[in-house]
Amino acid sequence: MAQSEEILMDADALTLFMRDVFQQVADDFAIDHVAPHEITMRLCTQHKHLRPGGTVSGPSMFALADVAAYLVTLAMIGPQALAVTTNCSIDFMRKPAAGVDLIAQAKLLKLGRQLSVSHVLLFSEGSSAPVAQATLTYAIPPVKT
Amino acid sequence: MAQSEEILMDADALTLFMRDVFQQVADDFAIDHVAPHEITMRLCTQHKHLRPGGTVSGPSMFALADVAAYLVTLAMIGPQALAVTTNCSIDFMRKPAAGVDLIAQAKLLKLGRQLSVSHVLLFSEGSSAPVAQATLTYAIPPVKT
Amino acid sequence: MAQSEEILMDADALTLFMRDVFQQVADDFAIDHVAPHEITMRLCTQHKHLRPGGTVSGPSMFALADVAAYLVTLAMIGPQALAVTTNCSIDFMRKPAAGVDLIAQAKLLKLGRQLSVSHVLLFSEGSSAPVAQATLTYAIPPVKT
Amino acid sequence: MAQSEEILMDADALTLFMRDVFQQVADDFAIDHVAPHEITMRLCTQHKHLRPGGTVSGPSMFALADVAAYLVTLAMIGPQALAVTTNCSIDFMRKPAAGVDLIAQAKLLKLGRQLSVSHVLLFSEGSSAPVAQATLTYAIPPVKT
Repeated sequence: MAQSEEILMDADALTLFMRDVFQQVADDFAIDHVAPHEITMRLCTQHKHLRPGGTVSGPSMFALADVAAYLVTLAMIGPQALAVTTNCSIDFMRKPAAGVDLIAQAKLLKLGRQLSVSHVLLFSEGSSAPVAQATLTYAIPPVKT
Repeated sequence: MAQSEEILMDADALTLFMRDVFQQVADDFAIDHVAPHEITMRLCTQHKHLRPGGTVSGPSMFALADVAAYLVTLAMIGPQALAVTTNCSIDFMRKPAAGVDLIAQAKLLKLGRQLSVSHVLLFSEGSSAPVAQATLTYAIPPVKT
Repeated sequence: MAQSEEILMDADALTLFMRDVFQQVADDFAIDHVAPHEITMRLCTQHKHLRPGGTVSGPSMFALADVAAYLVTLAMIGPQALAVTTNCSIDFMRKPAAGVDLIAQAKLLKLGRQLSVSHVLLFSEGSSAPVAQATLTYAIPPVKT
Repeated sequence: MAQSEEILMDADALTLFMRDVFQQVADDFAIDHVAPHEITMRLCTQHKHLRPGGTVSGPSMFALADVAAYLVTLAMIGPQALAVTTNCSIDFMRKPAAGVDLIAQAKLLKLGRQLSVSHVLLFSEGSSAPVAQATLTYAIPPVKT
């Protein structure tokens, strides 16, 4: 489980996994691209994600950052439904644009036996100024031997 | 705006404000108690807040912590719809119990002219072991003079 | 390792441990009080901890919060020199007073097999308004069996 | 104060400023490179920064991340000694290598009128695996008019 470059789950495998495990919210998200230790994905913004004025709500931004950190971890370790978020620190920096999807770019900075640590930037589609950044730690359940 | 003990909005005023400004989610939350620099409130857990297994989802926990920090700030400064979260750090410590409400106890630790800082503990109703803790900073819009 | 109330290391044992393991900085800190899942300790403020104007520096505040979270963990699990900080989020809320010690009140909110999570408030001695709050996670090395 | 690309203080100006304002610690740090919204700098590791085993201490890593976020802000807004850290979240991911400097790469993600937000990666010199990441918010004092 060292910092291998091998992708164990690609975009299709992660999408199927998400539909299987998080069927309630799987339609909210789509995966654009998976690379070693990186994922780009989106929140397919719908009415339920919005605040008055048309801006994406804080919990919806949190949800996107959280799922991006989860999936970039699973891409490298394979399907582990039981990985759980232990910490997230999120900075809200700009108001998201109305009427467009929200894009997450997640990088996996550390993949240990017990913990993964990621950095996620969120953008309104079509803009290069990040609306939020988040750092997330996932606890990975011990492998049974 | 110094650390006055005077409550400018009580539970009823905050509830009306929430229904007015966040009508999409206002029914998700209820306020139990307001005291100087403190609020106790709850997420009235519904199916949409759950993950498989019946546990409350991470974004729902984030949403509760966020609204508690917002309302404990407004209780002391009055209605300021434009206050915005700038940072939240949240530690997920235990799995919430299924089938019960989630309770937030928020304390306002700093109320400055530009920023408020809070600490929030989340509990499954009936349990004394916190399921999460969060620290939140709100930016308060400058008063126009 | 459940949430036992039994203190495995008291103030004297923690002080000796600190002198043994962190001899470079042990004289900077003193322990006031240890209770189940709680510790009160202090930074014995010296010239090297100060910024121009006599205020305690940010790194010195971080150091105090970090050692308080470490020692409140060890108080409950016994001497584990290899426990390491994995995350700290710290809010700097007020300027510390000049010429007085800095006090830390740490609470251990979660003690699991792999992780401990704490909340720490820092005060200038004699003041009830916190100068900083911090949340810290420690990774606890697995017990060899 | 919009997201201009113009550097108002270069490496030399920042070094002089640091010696002037933080003379107690200025010799601990050196600036490698300044670009728009980015800085690369180092902790010139000395005995006082170390823990037993020769690894750089947590407070020293915090100090480097903090000064990097401060200087990348000042590079774009000019000398503002009174800017203060309001929040730092730091993830410690790997043990720093012994006997080498610690390098910080800081990016300024948001520069508003009241707040700057940065992301900092720390590396042991010569290694590409980050030892820590930090996110920092600075409060910028209002311009007097």
